[in-house]
Amino acid sequence: MKIGIVGATGEVGRAMIKVLEDFKVPVKELKLFASKKSSGKILTFNDEKIIVEELTEDAMKLKYDFLLFSAGSDVSKKFAPIAAKYGNIVIDNSSAFRMNKDIPLVVPEINGYLLNNYKGIIANPNCSTIQMVLSLYKVHEKFGIDEIFVSTYQAVSGAGYKAIAELQKQLNGENITSVFPKQIAYNVIPLIGDITVDGFSTEEYKMINETRKILNDYTIKVFPTTVRVPVFYGHSEAVVVKTKIPFKEISSIENEIKNSKDVIFSDEVITPIEIAGTDYVYVSRLRKIDESRFAFWNVADNIRVGAATNAIRILMVMAGLS
Amino acid sequence: MKIGIVGATGEVGRAMIKVLEDFKVPVKELKLFASKKSSGKILTFNDEKIIVEELTEDAMKLKYDFLLFSAGSDVSKKFAPIAAKYGNIVIDNSSAFRMNKDIPLVVPEINGYLLNNYKGIIANPNCSTIQMVLSLYKVHEKFGIDEIFVSTYQAVSGAGYKAIAELQKQLNGENITSVFPKQIAYNVIPLIGDITVDGFSTEEYKMINETRKILNDYTIKVFPTTVRVPVFYGHSEAVVVKTKIPFKEISSIENEIKNSKDVIFSDEVITPIEIAGTDYVYVSRLRKIDESRFAFWNVADNIRVGAATNAIRILMVMAGLS
Repeated sequence: MKIGIVGATGEVGRAMIKVLEDFKVPVKELKLFASKKSSGKILTFNDEKIIVEELTEDAMKLKYDFLLFSAGSDVSKKFAPIAAKYGNIVIDNSSAFRMNKDIPLVVPEINGYLLNNYKGIIANPNCSTIQMVLSLYKVHEKFGIDEIFVSTYQAVSGAGYKAIAELQKQLNGENITSVFPKQIAYNVIPLIGDITVDGFSTEEYKMINETRKILNDYTIKVFPTTVRVPVFYGHSEAVVVKTKIPFKEISSIENEIKNSKDVIFSDEVITPIEIAGTDYVYVSRLRKIDESRFAFWNVADNIRVGAATNAIRILMVMAGLS
Repeated sequence: MKIGIVGATGEVGRAMIKVLEDFKVPVKELKLFASKKSSGKILTFNDEKIIVEELTEDAMKLKYDFLLFSAGSDVSKKFAPIAAKYGNIVIDNSSAFRMNKDIPLVVPEINGYLLNNYKGIIANPNCSTIQMVLSLYKVHEKFGIDEIFVSTYQAVSGAGYKAIAELQKQLNGENITSVFPKQIAYNVIPLIGDITVDGFSTEEYKMINETRKILNDYTIKVFPTTVRVPVFYGHSEAVVVKTKIPFKEISSIENEIKNSKDVIFSDEVITPIEIAGTDYVYVSRLRKIDESRFAFWNVADNIRVGAATNAIRILMVMAGLS
């Protein structure tokens, strides 16, 4: 297979290369693209050194089996349609096309069937959404989800490598604030993205809208509070769910979570630092509120499960590799 | 006034000394008590050096205007009843007596009337509870609170100075875990206290039970997830509330919060590091869910508002100083 990664030098781009290696995807040729500034950098794939090239329109007109985009919405909006027009399959990690009704928004374990015979642009969901819907899709199938209240504890890596550097610099005593609106070291910031007219933030609206689209049920109500915490890798979520059909016993919910693909249920408390670098969603602290409501805690590596791994899983389904 | 502080060398004990200074409480004599290990230390109050004495039963039998306890439940259980038996007023920051039906659990702004003509032991509530009920008591008076969903982001100082040192050591690269069950640096831990039989933790039960007792309404349902974060000072809470009577317009809730004593409403996002060292609860990110539900974010200094300041406010009400 010939694969191209756009935004190869970023946090998610580098993780995509790593996941291709880890999942032993049979890549014959890997092309890496980035901005002019990052072109010329050398990255390694399966011990082979690859020079990063500058992203150009012409490069997008060539033929690839898959193009993986993770270079931000503006780059995706400009270059992904060109690549698609020239017959390429684009798996796009940005938010550019997620809510476009003609573009599938895919978590393969949940709605991978949308990939059958599909050509063009496929959207990779928001990191916080992916790990939440993975822990809930089987519960939704069985009992129907009515409402979700979720408070997030999101790692800085979700905002890219500059954000990681910013936290590290602040921890080293530097008084620098550029990626985040306030200091993140020794602090938590209850705002990701911008506040919209009704008070919910753009990040919160991603969780609201993407959850409905992925679970294909626009009656689901989601009320998030998205918060940045001084963690490098691994998003956490405190979730409360109300089902449409009473589940009665919490063991019924536990069973559905255990039946969910790529989700690990644990009786022990799981924290983000312990599971960083893995490809699973970890659910713990499951507890019953009443016969139709329950609470739980979930954690997942936001760069892998929440971005790179989901993109590679889409690729593998489309390539007939899983 | 003659005041004694038991547990004077701890985080809350030291803050009590500071708040007595800041609030210009007219203290004639201040006695400081701690464990044998900490006795002999010298602390400063209004530029006066005071030698910390070992806590003894005999010392509790002397006459004070107020004894402030913050040395843990075991110490309170042993020494507070002796002090009370000998006619002293004890303001106890531990959880030892909070749920005792004969002991008032007081946030002065809310139920300070319980202090009228009262003698004996008064319980200071849990830090997370105090800041939550302070932002909600006026809403409860007007609309009646039905349900609260709360996810906390709790600073390490809530677990004492050893916990602060543990985070600092971990940030310095030391591989030490003793106060917390897992590493807290670059991590979040969704467990404070122990897990009980139904899955909720002892810390979560403090919020459930104390909220009902302080607001004097045992129909209120509280569903907390309490989480430790790598912040030194300042607890944060993402809260969703359902009222019994529809409030309809979110401005009605905003008005009640603005009318709440020692609570500051803000249109700007407020983070814990910004308000550490202050004596107010800061409410921001208020938003409407529907006509009887709303969400908000609150932050307060857990050592001051959540412990020392509340204790001194109780003292001042009883001493007729406020």
